[in-house]
Amino acid sequence: MRRFIILAHDVPTHPEFSLDDLPGGAGRLDVLCRCVTAGLLRSHGVRTDSEVIVVIQDELVVRFDGASIRRLNPDERSTAARFREAIADAEDAIGSISVDSSPGVSVARGDFTSVLSDIDGNLVQLHEDGEPLPALEPAEPVTFLLSDHRPFDENKETRASEFGARRICLGPEALHADQAITIANNYLDTNGYRTY
Amino acid sequence: MRRFIILAHDVPTHPEFSLDDLPGGAGRLDVLCRCVTAGLLRSHGVRTDSEVIVVIQDELVVRFDGASIRRLNPDERSTAARFREAIADAEDAIGSISVDSSPGVSVARGDFTSVLSDIDGNLVQLHEDGEPLPALEPAEPVTFLLSDHRPFDENKETRASEFGARRICLGPEALHADQAITIANNYLDTNGYRTY
Repeated sequence: MRRFIILAHDVPTHPEFSLDDLPGGAGRLDVLCRCVTAGLLRSHGVRTDSEVIVVIQDELVVRFDGASIRRLNPDERSTAARFREAIADAEDAIGSISVDSSPGVSVARGDFTSVLSDIDGNLVQLHEDGEPLPALEPAEPVTFLLSDHRPFDENKETRASEFGARRICLGPEALHADQAITIANNYLDTNGYRTY
Repeated sequence: MRRFIILAHDVPTHPEFSLDDLPGGAGRLDVLCRCVTAGLLRSHGVRTDSEVIVVIQDELVVRFDGASIRRLNPDERSTAARFREAIADAEDAIGSISVDSSPGVSVARGDFTSVLSDIDGNLVQLHEDGEPLPALEPAEPVTFLLSDHRPFDENKETRASEFGARRICLGPEALHADQAITIANNYLDTNGYRTY
């Protein structure tokens, strides 16, 4: 099992945004859509052992579960529609109980800390100051922590550290979150993490 | 210098398509947009030593040049608009002479063979039957050959082989073209290919 938790800083917590302006009015939702694609999709197939968890403004938690996802297409716009539907369905979410939105997509109220509290196994924060990727030895399950176009703030850095996250660096270049997910997935694929 | 040449099988050669339906009416232009982003963009920066060349239906050749590109955003829709503009500008292209479309984007009439004829240096075809990635030793320049959601046909396979392309496999999973570009870029970044 592999998980990717991504902090979304600017995605609205209400569904009144246009699919025609993902980088603007939708608060860089394009980044999160690409993260879902990178985390769950291979060529003509789904990574059934993978889960992508997006924490929106420390208020909403949207989960895309590879084991149960249906009709997930790789383009940004159709994934953005799934996000918007989940954000609308969040109005029915009471406390931390999740609401099923579309097949394989669920939403709940929650924040970074509540999500981390539910995670078992190894935590890895992808970070430019981390150890090189080859230092990451195979272990099951593994959860990667990432942020969207904005960096982790000090509070979130502290939280990740308190939960025992190890910092790993993917290479000399600063990458987009979805690119980081693609590289992490490929590293797991080629180093024996494959579990499905 | 690193180049990525991608075959686009279904993208229209006329600009009458909607940006709201990239996977459908635009012939999976979403895939090519993600390839441009993966090839040229880092987090908050451009890979100035990289070029993405898209061969549309063996008729049009659209080039995105990292050294001169301006205002390239990572989302699919805005990159699709650049493609559509270039496809419209192709009407002014005479013979194989390229037309500048928008800053860093040019278009010309041409096909896979004419593009390969102009390439110097090492050719690498990303292929599931290739040698493992670590077999690829540093060399300058390097050009990767990929295809969109459809595989290389026999004719193109033969052409790539005639031009001396070496087959390299990125891992055990079949990946999207843009995911393959991200992994190739990261491999070059971490193995001393960086030239800018």
